[in-house]
Amino acid sequence: MKLYTAHRAPNPRRVLMFIHEKGMDGIERVSMDLNAGEHKAAAYRARNPVSTVPALELADGRLLSETRAICSYLEGLHPEPNLMGRDMEERAFIEMHDRRVEWYWLLPIANCVRHTHPGLAALEHPQFADFGRAQGERVRERARWLNDTLAQQEWMAGERFTIADITAFCAHEFARGLMKFDAGAEGFSHLQAWRDRVAARESARAV
Amino acid sequence: MKLYTAHRAPNPRRVLMFIHEKGMDGIERVSMDLNAGEHKAAAYRARNPVSTVPALELADGRLLSETRAICSYLEGLHPEPNLMGRDMEERAFIEMHDRRVEWYWLLPIANCVRHTHPGLAALEHPQFADFGRAQGERVRERARWLNDTLAQQEWMAGERFTIADITAFCAHEFARGLMKFDAGAEGFSHLQAWRDRVAARESARAV
Repeated sequence: MKLYTAHRAPNPRRVLMFIHEKGMDGIERVSMDLNAGEHKAAAYRARNPVSTVPALELADGRLLSETRAICSYLEGLHPEPNLMGRDMEERAFIEMHDRRVEWYWLLPIANCVRHTHPGLAALEHPQFADFGRAQGERVRERARWLNDTLAQQEWMAGERFTIADITAFCAHEFARGLMKFDAGAEGFSHLQAWRDRVAARESARAV
Repeated sequence: MKLYTAHRAPNPRRVLMFIHEKGMDGIERVSMDLNAGEHKAAAYRARNPVSTVPALELADGRLLSETRAICSYLEGLHPEPNLMGRDMEERAFIEMHDRRVEWYWLLPIANCVRHTHPGLAALEHPQFADFGRAQGERVRERARWLNDTLAQQEWMAGERFTIADITAFCAHEFARGLMKFDAGAEGFSHLQAWRDRVAARESARAV
């Protein structure tokens, strides 16, 4: 297997962190230069029509893209430690939590960064700065929701560390780096404490 | 079980279509008035902090939200007809195709409609019309990708009808109704033929 990945982008980081939690660090990596548009080149596009990174090349040569689909495949290969649910009911609830942090936390963060950060102007063209700033305000509202959630439970999906923590953490670190989002300074102490718990894991350094 | 749903919204329709394909039409429904903000009311919000519809109330009273998580749960209860994959490998590839049509087809359609349609002004406030129009152009680019895909294969995920067709069809019908998107008239004949194949299914009338 071979993982197409990219530095400093939140979605590749999700897969790298998942791989590290699984103890599958031996998977070969091919680093793509997104700023140079390597993912838009014809050769890659022929294999992945939506030009996204990460993507996992399987042993038989097929390319599997989409962060969460890659994780589902890897969880199937290496069920332990379990990160996506042990039975159909737990899988559905973890999927719910993972999607919630992906759609209502990572997505507005990505929208804000893509539409307001000068460094992303080549990737997101044209940028709509007003939209981006409004999405940034939404990130703050959502931080309040996550903070309230984490006042009641230790991890995003409840009692144990799951893929939803990986998704939310990679989103958080992207916001911390590119939106200067500081959960503690903004009064989200439970969110900050959760972030620090995740950051203490060895997998948080898999970038 | 009880399904919280809403008329004419693409995500509730995805679950209703999935339920019909599974032959589970007996599930009780509670229709929410999104324009009246019923999903934002305190009682619903206390159970679903992100205020989304659809949501499935389980027999034990817990609320499961997020369209695809609800489908995962229902697929677990009623594995046949299979719509999400029979083994871990097929599940991962169907998840990839489902996510592709959700993120790169449904999302720009929803962004375009939310930010440009007068009827959505109450739900999406403020609207960013320039952003919405640019997303509408993206919808046309993505129609080309889907059309090319469907020139090679009959269904979104390959050889058989799956959840990815449900997601893409509900997105398509939303674009047809609210963006006046007409695949055939715009030259996307394979996309139109696929749309007509799905529209011929009984589940397409489950709205």
